[in-house]
Amino acid sequence: MTGKKSERRSECPTAYALDIFGDRWTLLIVRDLLIGGKSRYKDFLEAGEGIATNILADRLGRLEAWGIVTSAPDPVNRRVKRYRLTQKGLDLAPMMLEMILWSARYDPDTGAPKAFLRRAQRDREGLLADLVEGARARAVD
Amino acid sequence: MTGKKSERRSECPTAYALDIFGDRWTLLIVRDLLIGGKSRYKDFLEAGEGIATNILADRLGRLEAWGIVTSAPDPVNRRVKRYRLTQKGLDLAPMMLEMILWSARYDPDTGAPKAFLRRAQRDREGLLADLVEGARARAVD
Repeated sequence: MTGKKSERRSECPTAYALDIFGDRWTLLIVRDLLIGGKSRYKDFLEAGEGIATNILADRLGRLEAWGIVTSAPDPVNRRVKRYRLTQKGLDLAPMMLEMILWSARYDPDTGAPKAFLRRAQRDREGLLADLVEGARARAVD
Repeated sequence: MTGKKSERRSECPTAYALDIFGDRWTLLIVRDLLIGGKSRYKDFLEAGEGIATNILADRLGRLEAWGIVTSAPDPVNRRVKRYRLTQKGLDLAPMMLEMILWSARYDPDTGAPKAFLRRAQRDREGLLADLVEGARARAVD
């Protein structure tokens, strides 16, 4: 959970990803941005898993430092900050999709929507393109 | 980091995966089993990132409890335990691959082999099948 190069464990690409995502919260924020249509601090706070405000602030700060998320004032209400995924963040879509498919396969209580899963099987590339396009369209810039 | 249903945060498939993999070590053990050709406790301990023995023992126990890893005595030296991925574990290959590709794209110091990355671009399904087949062939049963 650090972006500092001096603390890296190895040059292994799995370790690189886990140095960023190896906690229970960071990818949930990416999920909210990519799939959940969320962009404001309070949206993430209310996302369902009950993230604590100090953890949320910390993880958003790290995501910005890693260049995965960026933020800007809302064009209408400039006191509200809008977060969005950068290209580096949008490029997490295939990994997120595979994570969702694996969970949906093995979690008997999964809440993954059936229509989403069907489309992932039939039209993986189209689904990925739509996810990325949707997240991009919600971006503020 | 618990398999107990009572402690689940939501029915979201991303949260399900992160309740399992949301730490810095668990997926490195899966990597060692899937890609690294490793199967013994001491192999994981020597894998390069310097996992502590108590963390390794804990994570192997959790992976077995989740049904992702199974173990059996080595057929030649029965005092040595061999670990292998179950089907649930082998099915993590697509997620691992996307994680590796993302890291390789954004980590300027990546150690991901170029031949691996080229094949992933040209022949994703074939590469996945070979990874799974290789891990299966090393299994002890």
